[in-house]
Amino acid sequence: AFARGPMDGSRRRTPRGALAVMAKEPDSASGWEVIERPAGLLRRFAFPSYGETRKFLDDLAELSKTTGRYPDIGFGTTYANIMLHAAGDKVTAADSEFAQKVNAFAKPKA
Amino acid sequence: AFARGPMDGSRRRTPRGALAVMAKEPDSASGWEVIERPAGLLRRFAFPSYGETRKFLDDLAELSKTTGRYPDIGFGTTYANIMLHAAGDKVTAADSEFAQKVNAFAKPKA
Repeated sequence: AFARGPMDGSRRRTPRGALAVMAKEPDSASGWEVIERPAGLLRRFAFPSYGETRKFLDDLAELSKTTGRYPDIGFGTTYANIMLHAAGDKVTAADSEFAQKVNAFAKPKA
Repeated sequence: AFARGPMDGSRRRTPRGALAVMAKEPDSASGWEVIERPAGLLRRFAFPSYGETRKFLDDLAELSKTTGRYPDIGFGTTYANIMLHAAGDKVTAADSEFAQKVNAFAKPKA
C-alpha cells in the first residue's frame, strides 16, 4: 500500500520505525547528495519545461543503454530525481563519473 | 534534503507530523488506488524486462502528449509507479478513463 504524497521525492521518508541514515556532507562539488546504506548518489534536477525534462530523460536513457547502469528515476513535467545505486557498498569514482555525465545533460548548451 | 529509500514508492511516507490519508477501498476494478487530498489515482506496474518498462513509459508519454495530462512517474528497470492527479478535488470518470488507458499499455498484447 502507498501513503499519499508527491512523487517528487521531496517528502520521501523511510518506513515508520526505520532510522533515516543521511550523509551529513553532500557531494557539493557535483551537486549530488551522497547516500549511505544502500550507497548511492541522489540529485534533483529542475527544468523550465516538459520538453527539457523529456530531453534530459532521453539523454539519460541513452547513457544507461551505453553504460548498462539504470538509476531509479522519479519525474514530473518539470523535475527529475535521479537515484544512482553504487555498484558496491560505497560510492566510487565510477559512480561520480556517471553523475557528472548526468549533470552535463542538465546544463544549458552553450 | 532527502531521506534514503527506494525510489519505487513502496516506502513512501508523508512528512513527519502529517497524517497519511489513505483510501480504504482501492479502486479494485481498475487496479488503481484512490488517493484523497490531493485527489488522484495511483498504481504500480511491474514488468519482466527494461524493454517492456521502456515501451510502457513511451506509450504513456504519447498518451500525455495527446491528452495534455502528465502524471508523476517513478520508475526503475522493471517497475513504474504512476500517480495521476485529479483535475478537481475528487477523482472523476475522466481520471478513471485515463487510468484504464494506462492499464491497456501494461497488458500483454494478444
